[in-house]
Amino acid sequence: MIHGTHNAVDDTRNNDILVYINGDFYKREEAKISVFDSGYLVGDGIWEALRLHQGVLVFLEDHLERLWTAAATVGMQFPFSKNELKLTVEKVLKKNDMHDDVHVRIMITRGIKKTPSQDPRLTISGPNIVIVPEYKKASSETKEKGITLFTSTIRRGSPDYLDPKLNCHSKLHEVQALIQAIEAGADEALMLDVNGFISTCNATNFFMIKNGEVWTSTGEYCMNGITRAKVIEVCKIHDIPCHQKNVSLFDVYGADEAFVTGTFGGLTPVVKIDGRQIGNGTFGSLTRTLSAHYHQLIKTYISNVKG
Amino acid sequence: MIHGTHNAVDDTRNNDILVYINGDFYKREEAKISVFDSGYLVGDGIWEALRLHQGVLVFLEDHLERLWTAAATVGMQFPFSKNELKLTVEKVLKKNDMHDDVHVRIMITRGIKKTPSQDPRLTISGPNIVIVPEYKKASSETKEKGITLFTSTIRRGSPDYLDPKLNCHSKLHEVQALIQAIEAGADEALMLDVNGFISTCNATNFFMIKNGEVWTSTGEYCMNGITRAKVIEVCKIHDIPCHQKNVSLFDVYGADEAFVTGTFGGLTPVVKIDGRQIGNGTFGSLTRTLSAHYHQLIKTYISNVKG
Amino acid sequence: MIHGTHNAVDDTRNNDILVYINGDFYKREEAKISVFDSGYLVGDGIWEALRLHQGVLVFLEDHLERLWTAAATVGMQFPFSKNELKLTVEKVLKKNDMHDDVHVRIMITRGIKKTPSQDPRLTISGPNIVIVPEYKKASSETKEKGITLFTSTIRRGSPDYLDPKLNCHSKLHEVQALIQAIEAGADEALMLDVNGFISTCNATNFFMIKNGEVWTSTGEYCMNGITRAKVIEVCKIHDIPCHQKNVSLFDVYGADEAFVTGTFGGLTPVVKIDGRQIGNGTFGSLTRTLSAHYHQLIKTYISNVKG
Amino acid sequence: MIHGTHNAVDDTRNNDILVYINGDFYKREEAKISVFDSGYLVGDGIWEALRLHQGVLVFLEDHLERLWTAAATVGMQFPFSKNELKLTVEKVLKKNDMHDDVHVRIMITRGIKKTPSQDPRLTISGPNIVIVPEYKKASSETKEKGITLFTSTIRRGSPDYLDPKLNCHSKLHEVQALIQAIEAGADEALMLDVNGFISTCNATNFFMIKNGEVWTSTGEYCMNGITRAKVIEVCKIHDIPCHQKNVSLFDVYGADEAFVTGTFGGLTPVVKIDGRQIGNGTFGSLTRTLSAHYHQLIKTYISNVKG
Amino acid sequence: MIHGTHNAVDDTRNNDILVYINGDFYKREEAKISVFDSGYLVGDGIWEALRLHQGVLVFLEDHLERLWTAAATVGMQFPFSKNELKLTVEKVLKKNDMHDDVHVRIMITRGIKKTPSQDPRLTISGPNIVIVPEYKKASSETKEKGITLFTSTIRRGSPDYLDPKLNCHSKLHEVQALIQAIEAGADEALMLDVNGFISTCNATNFFMIKNGEVWTSTGEYCMNGITRAKVIEVCKIHDIPCHQKNVSLFDVYGADEAFVTGTFGGLTPVVKIDGRQIGNGTFGSLTRTLSAHYHQLIKTYISNVKG
Amino acid sequence: MIHGTHNAVDDTRNNDILVYINGDFYKREEAKISVFDSGYLVGDGIWEALRLHQGVLVFLEDHLERLWTAAATVGMQFPFSKNELKLTVEKVLKKNDMHDDVHVRIMITRGIKKTPSQDPRLTISGPNIVIVPEYKKASSETKEKGITLFTSTIRRGSPDYLDPKLNCHSKLHEVQALIQAIEAGADEALMLDVNGFISTCNATNFFMIKNGEVWTSTGEYCMNGITRAKVIEVCKIHDIPCHQKNVSLFDVYGADEAFVTGTFGGLTPVVKIDGRQIGNGTFGSLTRTLSAHYHQLIKTYISNVKG
Repeated sequence: MIHGTHNAVDDTRNNDILVYINGDFYKREEAKISVFDSGYLVGDGIWEALRLHQGVLVFLEDHLERLWTAAATVGMQFPFSKNELKLTVEKVLKKNDMHDDVHVRIMITRGIKKTPSQDPRLTISGPNIVIVPEYKKASSETKEKGITLFTSTIRRGSPDYLDPKLNCHSKLHEVQALIQAIEAGADEALMLDVNGFISTCNATNFFMIKNGEVWTSTGEYCMNGITRAKVIEVCKIHDIPCHQKNVSLFDVYGADEAFVTGTFGGLTPVVKIDGRQIGNGTFGSLTRTLSAHYHQLIKTYISNVKG
Repeated sequence: MIHGTHNAVDDTRNNDILVYINGDFYKREEAKISVFDSGYLVGDGIWEALRLHQGVLVFLEDHLERLWTAAATVGMQFPFSKNELKLTVEKVLKKNDMHDDVHVRIMITRGIKKTPSQDPRLTISGPNIVIVPEYKKASSETKEKGITLFTSTIRRGSPDYLDPKLNCHSKLHEVQALIQAIEAGADEALMLDVNGFISTCNATNFFMIKNGEVWTSTGEYCMNGITRAKVIEVCKIHDIPCHQKNVSLFDVYGADEAFVTGTFGGLTPVVKIDGRQIGNGTFGSLTRTLSAHYHQLIKTYISNVKG
Repeated sequence: MIHGTHNAVDDTRNNDILVYINGDFYKREEAKISVFDSGYLVGDGIWEALRLHQGVLVFLEDHLERLWTAAATVGMQFPFSKNELKLTVEKVLKKNDMHDDVHVRIMITRGIKKTPSQDPRLTISGPNIVIVPEYKKASSETKEKGITLFTSTIRRGSPDYLDPKLNCHSKLHEVQALIQAIEAGADEALMLDVNGFISTCNATNFFMIKNGEVWTSTGEYCMNGITRAKVIEVCKIHDIPCHQKNVSLFDVYGADEAFVTGTFGGLTPVVKIDGRQIGNGTFGSLTRTLSAHYHQLIKTYISNVKG
Repeated sequence: MIHGTHNAVDDTRNNDILVYINGDFYKREEAKISVFDSGYLVGDGIWEALRLHQGVLVFLEDHLERLWTAAATVGMQFPFSKNELKLTVEKVLKKNDMHDDVHVRIMITRGIKKTPSQDPRLTISGPNIVIVPEYKKASSETKEKGITLFTSTIRRGSPDYLDPKLNCHSKLHEVQALIQAIEAGADEALMLDVNGFISTCNATNFFMIKNGEVWTSTGEYCMNGITRAKVIEVCKIHDIPCHQKNVSLFDVYGADEAFVTGTFGGLTPVVKIDGRQIGNGTFGSLTRTLSAHYHQLIKTYISNVKG
Repeated sequence: MIHGTHNAVDDTRNNDILVYINGDFYKREEAKISVFDSGYLVGDGIWEALRLHQGVLVFLEDHLERLWTAAATVGMQFPFSKNELKLTVEKVLKKNDMHDDVHVRIMITRGIKKTPSQDPRLTISGPNIVIVPEYKKASSETKEKGITLFTSTIRRGSPDYLDPKLNCHSKLHEVQALIQAIEAGADEALMLDVNGFISTCNATNFFMIKNGEVWTSTGEYCMNGITRAKVIEVCKIHDIPCHQKNVSLFDVYGADEAFVTGTFGGLTPVVKIDGRQIGNGTFGSLTRTLSAHYHQLIKTYISNVKG
Repeated sequence: MIHGTHNAVDDTRNNDILVYINGDFYKREEAKISVFDSGYLVGDGIWEALRLHQGVLVFLEDHLERLWTAAATVGMQFPFSKNELKLTVEKVLKKNDMHDDVHVRIMITRGIKKTPSQDPRLTISGPNIVIVPEYKKASSETKEKGITLFTSTIRRGSPDYLDPKLNCHSKLHEVQALIQAIEAGADEALMLDVNGFISTCNATNFFMIKNGEVWTSTGEYCMNGITRAKVIEVCKIHDIPCHQKNVSLFDVYGADEAFVTGTFGGLTPVVKIDGRQIGNGTFGSLTRTLSAHYHQLIKTYISNVKG
């Protein structure tokens, strides 16, 4: 979400953060990676984004599990354990003296290549690991106002191309989708899958509400969002009917409410899609309830961790 | 092609090259780009690879044209002209005192982001330009022996996902295809398009020969290879029937000869696909003829440029 | 269903009905719409069909909800509320002094165009509303004998073309499917979706029974039938296993029973598909049970409305 | 094209035209068709649009041929010959005393139905024929300025659904595409085919120019435009390379020029697509040349007819 | 073609033919193959059908080339050369004392399996070769009357499934298509490809004629017919425009003439498709011309062989 | 599974089995079928494989039900009842004096053709029935070691081609997939469906385990395995979460355990896919539990039958 992000990055504390690169710390403007790095050359790397709330890395185990699955998918083997990575992230936060409202991006690429090439056999280093911690807080104004979407011509690919669930460094197609949505005057792109059903937004997951039910895509072509999974979980906990299914624009244009989810922004209402108002064009009441449930889930997680 | 590449990068002169980054020159191990660069973060960048033969950048105009089309596709605008870029490349070569058998990779990314994000509106610099010149020469041994391919499960995507013609920094799917081929014991991956027809290899273009005719894919789902275009051109010049059409594995397994093309290696024979010998398993005679024609085309280009 | 329909329209009382057009009433032969109407010109309109049983418009709320969703899909806004439309329909029935076994078709088109064109900006009137009430009763003979289907070559489209759930005035593809089935000697066309699974018939929904279970398509590519939804509902109420899933001709040819559903005919047994007898070729016993449950649901609805 | 159309329909002479319906003439506001007409009910009808230039119905034979093919496709048989229809159109023009700059729309629907239904067996009349003649002239201002396109999410369907070449009364999907383009601020929608290649605009055909070559889609999923065919013909006549092939957005965004074609507007330049300027954003020079050639073709046709 | 085949097999001379199996000759009723043969067990075999005219095996080289390509596709290696197979066929004909109007079917399966299984590693014999020679002559009555087609729901598969060009022992899908056409009252099935375009009939290739041009499918999804190739060749020789392209039912229903081709029947006119008459419903004049040209080609071939 | 099969077929008792063909018994090397049999000619036949454990044909009713559904699909009618076929199988076992660890393959083809042809109207006999009983026991060594898979380029077809659920004699595509896997050094092929999701192996069904859940494909494109159904059943019985859903290589490479199922081998662990180790590369603990549950289900079945 654009507006939220803008607010977030305007936090001046971010000017002075220290970025972690393969064991060392660098100032923002000195944080650099080799131009022979596989992530830079051919998008050959994977990443995760975590939230630090009240000193706790929320849903940490889910994020690490997803990162390790991504590594298996792209055939990378990490020379460290999940716990070692966790300790490294904690070291980064400590070094930066950060405690709340922090967004942590972990990026792991296959490594440095002997020469610019796709070939994994030409990798001459172990994986490169970069960790960027930044202060970011979703603006409550954005949340209240909601955002607008435009359905892009650019589709989600099939899993036999580049698995759409993969959090990787090859995301130009999502950039392309967003560019088209921006040109159409919207905040973010709604993307269809190869069969023409609603899948996801370019950087968040999409949900809609109809007659008291929560609907989202099957998850087969969309980003494998952890916030998405948590919304589905809170629906189960609170006995709110929630269906992962093929939803078409027919359903979406007739929705009562709609919202997007992401690690950064949690739940953000959608008030307009393709120029058509959704429901009454405001932060819907069931969306608001789900958002509250989601924040409660985070609170519970935090208190469990803190013991 | 792996073997050729290995030989190429073992040229010790490459240890001392100077890499161009946004106007400055850096030693190989100091050549670095910001971890906030869009190419590193989300594969949001485009590139070209050129050959310097006898002091001449071969087919330069074609490469620049392709680069400018790629920029239009991804919505980037360059703050320099084609001629200015050409002068920059020449400056890089001069600085490195390079004259022959040089491979030049130009990489242009959207620029530095305020924060890790797909959003082009958060770009806070102009495009980053990196130029890596290296000594590389295809090994004649590899050429004589030929290479082996394995048909990957990974497909070429549709143009409504990420246009497969685009030379960009989001190439993880091609890395994935190559990994599968390597696991199957082959040198490079043969890739099918979404309809199941032969499209291309992961990093080179594919051709086959049947009854004196040259066949290659329609070009709709494959890399937009300049060497590919030149092979088609020499066929026209020399009245060798050449068809761009949908070719299936039925055709490929029954081919008389096969070869791949690329800027680096020119034409390299393929001797085995999916474990099945192609033709008599050697550098085919029509492939050899086409290779000679192609080298003649380069010679003509060079002498035209040199006047 | 053909036979039923024929019987229905042979009710001579229909000769004297009054058709509602934008507030006025017209005799059947004088009921006309402008040739500049968007529905006539380019199929740009939506419709609903309702049943009047014993003075009650059965499942009225479901029909109105579906109509309003359709309007959202095609970007039409009605200058009246659901209740106002309900009152209008009641006025039409009163004007015609109709009380039972009546089929009411409500058709709403975008409006009159300045000139024949697709362009919604050239619409110069509000929506045109036409209501046709007719006496129609499904023949019990047809029900007992059952109908025959033929699988058409014509497929259900994807939702990124024209959402197959939409009850609209652009239905020529369904006419085409029916024509092919008629040529093959059948009563109605069975239609596959884009992936080759059973979806629906051209004007009714399809169900089959296997080992005591009721199977119907996922609903993603088929008409969004209200009778279909009611059959699924009665299965739930009566603990009859009912699955919405991808069913292929493999399953259908081996079915124990099959039937189609529609607002007009309720449940009608299918006795032959593509020339192959289904089950024992008669009105199956579970079909008969479901039909009875469906009629009970209608009765309950009526008595609830009548209070 | 919107702007042109607007100008066209603002010709006040159109207020007084007489519309032909099944042999009789009606004033515009009295020109009506039965609400039981198959075209109104389910979009079951076909149409043609002709231009009258200097008293001559241009390319009349092509239009009649296309109409008869459409009739065969939808299984309609006309009770009149091509020549009889031609005489009828001439009668309509004479009745209206029209001689130049006239757009004639011929609409033929299957006929009146016994009851609202898809079933062709319930048709109780012969085909209904409606002919609307209007004064329309493309504004030269629009031509000079060019129009803007936006690539719609809505796709061209496959021929196994509703043949996209068919000029029929079921065109709601094209209306939907146009609505999305309008919401994005553009004049008309660019539509992709099922494979993600450029096909056509919602109501005109699309062409682009690259390095002196004219490219348009294969024609397999697009409207079967007669102006499109004539542009291809003039390319042949004047030795301008013209390719019907799969073109992607990669190609389109990098085009030197682009234009759309239609019976009404001839060739109209496209200056922006998805917010990106095409070429230098003006009426391109090769487009201008092709437009001149096209008008010459019309002139030749007229003088041939006039003898 | 059914009628022709019926006539053909009613030649009583066929009762006494000797069938060749792996070097030995057997009477028709004693001609048997092991139930452990891969062709019987899992359709793992390939075949060719040849015509003997006036003592000459017509187009023999084309048939052998196609057979060897099929072997490469399925990974079989023959323990004999093309010439050896030719000599074997001649031996079979001599043994049967056959000289004219003979249909020869060569069937080669992978061999006998250790146990019923797909696994090629369990093959314990060399390939099994069976040659069936029969007297067959297409009835001239059938040709004059023409045949009828019905478009089947069953599609041609993609080359990434089972290459539709392959003449193999796994043909149940074509049997299924034919069964549906028979149920619809037609002689043979017209089959669409995966994209909905016309591809081929179940056992012959399909051509249509429009405005003096000959159209047939691209060949990508259809049987790789040698008669098909010869028709295209005679068009070239006689300057008759012939296009291999995507043709839809839109085109087919509006065809002037249509015909099918096969080794057995040569060219046979099609007079009705899906119940709709093609052209004037007789043996079309251009079809007749092409048929004459084709027979001339055979004559020339024969006289060339005979010297 | 290869290794198991090899062991199995090395049981020397199989040299002396008697094969049933249409009522008579033949020694293995004399067990032959006419070369005019539809199964041999065009793969036009269907089959089942049963296991005899301790004198009981396990899950017999499921196998017969599946066989009768297959017959309906291909339009065959059996001249015998399920019970009669059961008695025939028992006769075969008695004749061979077989009591345990026996694999019985029943093959039923449409019958003998008048001439080699696809046409079912040319069938001149009733169906041919062949029953092959063999001693086969899965090697426990193979089970402990597990097998390796390679994802084939060859896909599962759509149900509108040849229904992938059908156990028929046209299986060359599965042979092709296996050949590719063998070339890549693996034991069996993993096959994707048309959308790129995991479907099945070439001759067994595929399951994976993630976080204590059992995942397998939707079943829409895979073999309709009875062992597969039984594994799903034991999961229900023992409250082990089991989901039939679209699973991609992303999920598979990150699986904790994986296994394949088949009538012959029951559950066999998979230790490597595409060269990547699955879990810890051994017989996983949940797989072991499921295998035990499955064998218990067989035991229960046997004791129920034996009373």
